[in-house]
Amino acid sequence: MHIPMPPEFSKAAAHSAGRQVTIGKHDVAEKDGVFDLSIGLNYGQSIGSAQLLRWVTEHTELVSRPPYADWRCALTIGSTGSLEAAYRMFCDRNRGDSILTEEYSFSTALETAAPLGIKVFGVKIDDEGLIPASMDEILSTWDETARGARKPTVLYTVPSGQNPTGAMQGEQRRRGIYEICRKHDIFIFEDEPYYFLQMQPYTGPNAPALPPPATVEEFLGGLVPTLLSMDVDGRVMRHDSFSKVIVPGSRLGWVTASEQVIERYIRHAECCSQGPSGFSQLITYKLVDEEWGHEGYLKWLMNLRLEYTKRRNAILAACEKFLPREVVSWTPPAAGMFLWLKVDHQLHPDAATRCLIDIEQEIFDLCIDKGVLACPGSWFRAEQDKPLSGLFFRTMFASASEEQMAVAIERFGAAVRDSYRMG
Amino acid sequence: MHIPMPPEFSKAAAHSAGRQVTIGKHDVAEKDGVFDLSIGLNYGQSIGSAQLLRWVTEHTELVSRPPYADWRCALTIGSTGSLEAAYRMFCDRNRGDSILTEEYSFSTALETAAPLGIKVFGVKIDDEGLIPASMDEILSTWDETARGARKPTVLYTVPSGQNPTGAMQGEQRRRGIYEICRKHDIFIFEDEPYYFLQMQPYTGPNAPALPPPATVEEFLGGLVPTLLSMDVDGRVMRHDSFSKVIVPGSRLGWVTASEQVIERYIRHAECCSQGPSGFSQLITYKLVDEEWGHEGYLKWLMNLRLEYTKRRNAILAACEKFLPREVVSWTPPAAGMFLWLKVDHQLHPDAATRCLIDIEQEIFDLCIDKGVLACPGSWFRAEQDKPLSGLFFRTMFASASEEQMAVAIERFGAAVRDSYRMG
Ligand SMILES: Cc1ncc(COP(=O)(O)O)c(C=O)c1O
Ligand SMILES: Cc1ncc(COP(=O)(O)O)c(C=O)c1O
Repeated sequence: MHIPMPPEFSKAAAHSAGRQVTIGKHDVAEKDGVFDLSIGLNYGQSIGSAQLLRWVTEHTELVSRPPYADWRCALTIGSTGSLEAAYRMFCDRNRGDSILTEEYSFSTALETAAPLGIKVFGVKIDDEGLIPASMDEILSTWDETARGARKPTVLYTVPSGQNPTGAMQGEQRRRGIYEICRKHDIFIFEDEPYYFLQMQPYTGPNAPALPPPATVEEFLGGLVPTLLSMDVDGRVMRHDSFSKVIVPGSRLGWVTASEQVIERYIRHAECCSQGPSGFSQLITYKLVDEEWGHEGYLKWLMNLRLEYTKRRNAILAACEKFLPREVVSWTPPAAGMFLWLKVDHQLHPDAATRCLIDIEQEIFDLCIDKGVLACPGSWFRAEQDKPLSGLFFRTMFASASEEQMAVAIERFGAAVRDSYRMG
Repeated sequence: MHIPMPPEFSKAAAHSAGRQVTIGKHDVAEKDGVFDLSIGLNYGQSIGSAQLLRWVTEHTELVSRPPYADWRCALTIGSTGSLEAAYRMFCDRNRGDSILTEEYSFSTALETAAPLGIKVFGVKIDDEGLIPASMDEILSTWDETARGARKPTVLYTVPSGQNPTGAMQGEQRRRGIYEICRKHDIFIFEDEPYYFLQMQPYTGPNAPALPPPATVEEFLGGLVPTLLSMDVDGRVMRHDSFSKVIVPGSRLGWVTASEQVIERYIRHAECCSQGPSGFSQLITYKLVDEEWGHEGYLKWLMNLRLEYTKRRNAILAACEKFLPREVVSWTPPAAGMFLWLKVDHQLHPDAATRCLIDIEQEIFDLCIDKGVLACPGSWFRAEQDKPLSGLFFRTMFASASEEQMAVAIERFGAAVRDSYRMG
């Protein structure tokens, strides 16, 4: 079996593009490798193949070095699937279980909780995401009857480049969140598809860029520590995914948690997914272990960092050029692929007479008329029955070209101006 | 991307072994195909890629031609996953829902139902599998209080080469089962990983073999009709899988049912698996559509038929040679990969003083001592709390060589002789 490198993503990756790697049927028996078709394509363990599992475990050790002995990894069919399993493992509708998350949260995570009958409550956010004090207040004043649910036992959070707000929790913020979780004995689902899309600091439209990390060590040392790395209690289940850093179509990721949690996870996988696709595992293994190794993979991520930095800077430049700064504001994203645009609803000419959701819909429709999709904040509300707290739109800088992004932002600006009758 | 044909399975398949197929990144844009890496490896629809979905739909039309208009297919991550989803769609522990299945049933299916809180009840079986009259009686005399569950609303059945009994429901048997399901308004999960492993009729150790089907049409015409093909009410959800006919590691299959059921299935997949691996879909598509086409795939299945016929005949020959016919009997399997050995417990020297499960364990342990694994019937009981109805052992003729199978059967025979003190 011959596999190509993943679609070349940046010029910097070109050195490894176009190479071919070979996977034979009996490489292992023939002492030509440790993972081959005869192993990868048969029924395997639900935890994943020993080979790729070893690799992700080493990688996790390099990145997070969890501060307790009996942590383990298990391969998954991606974070959507592992998150659904985690909900089912930790929450029970019959017990009235509930979870906390950012007040604007990843819509699929919300849609996954809903059919399981798990109630979701939103925690206030700022530029650094979830606010520990808000979480503490909610938990300290929990009234089961008024809330119609048991006091939450789980926090679902996306610490880096959160979807949809793009917010990045800094190290102190993370430590603060972890402390509140200890105080109220909350288990944490750390969902981190964008962790390795931490970008170069944004220096503004005209200042020179900072030099990128020169070495793999510098790159790793510069990343904000993971919640898993702070987890002295074994209360974190971290969800990693290859979706945003290699290809989403692999449907491949992994979870890391205490041995007890992983054991439950595997039991679940045995009567559900039976582990990820052997093709996906084989191809990914060949790439990240045999072709790249840990250092090569980290270099790949360093390239992604620069690629996303460029894209982020391009969308910010477009915003600065095309958006009416009097009413639209934003925080330059430090990670991920989302830019969250805040529109000052108090300045809207109809602010006194129309409700927010109405104005949001108007701007959304105007955008569609102009040929651009800006996802409205209401789609991401953790509590769908609460009034909106502001006018927000999520934009993305993952795949469009710089020119396309500029056109999109210009159209969004025009839609806002139309709605605000800025002439 | 270059992919090989699947591991060559029989000499008859050798004509296509070793070929290479190429998948490019932008074949579609470059008009060199309809499915490429840029499509297959991105996020896709949870129902599966349009290309492979079209293929499985055409294949289902060829094989089952469901007798109503709005049937649809959806790709799955294999039958274990689709079955788990189906249980969750159709059954609710809070309602006390229950299902029926063969009294000895696929252990993973039982283990999947258990954590969902779904009660499973066994239907009596004979050489042709599930007995409609037994099902009718159970349903007609259902006593909710005595049973501790609502009257079953779902039948889970494996009509062809059932796991573990190897039983094959004939056409009349299937029609009988369907009629009872209509009478009691039972929905059917038709789980058919072994459907295409229907073998040549067994003609005994010495009689000449019958000629195999000469054409694809003859092959298709000779298969026992599917429950789906009889489904005038839309009460069947059929689960197909590539696991037993291409490779299990693909984690790829599909379901077929009414549009309404498939719509629910897709909503489920959207917040769980998000559809099967893009690598698995691409490689399978290249193989079954571009390389083989429908006719080529059916010819592949015809080869499997002969290969399994050979293996089945070999294990039966070993049984005739090595087993003590006074106490061990069997029905030559007509489909699948399992041979179910019945041991006459009434003839056991301790029949009057020891319980069945004890004797079963003894034979199992004796087998292990001699280096052979024979799965005891108790592992497969639909109702684990009921006494065993007989002494059964499941053997398999899927992957061992003829020599290995002979050794295994010889050892099993010796274990039985030891236990029966036939010395
Ligand atoms: C926060 C978050 N988690 C998980 C996912 C999905 O990851 P996967 O492809 O591994 O299921 C996404 C994708 O958009 C996401 O934004
Ligand atoms: C009856 C039956 N259904 C389903 C399966 C599993 O199929 P899949 O690999 O598609 O999950 C098996 C495998 O042993 C089986 O025997």
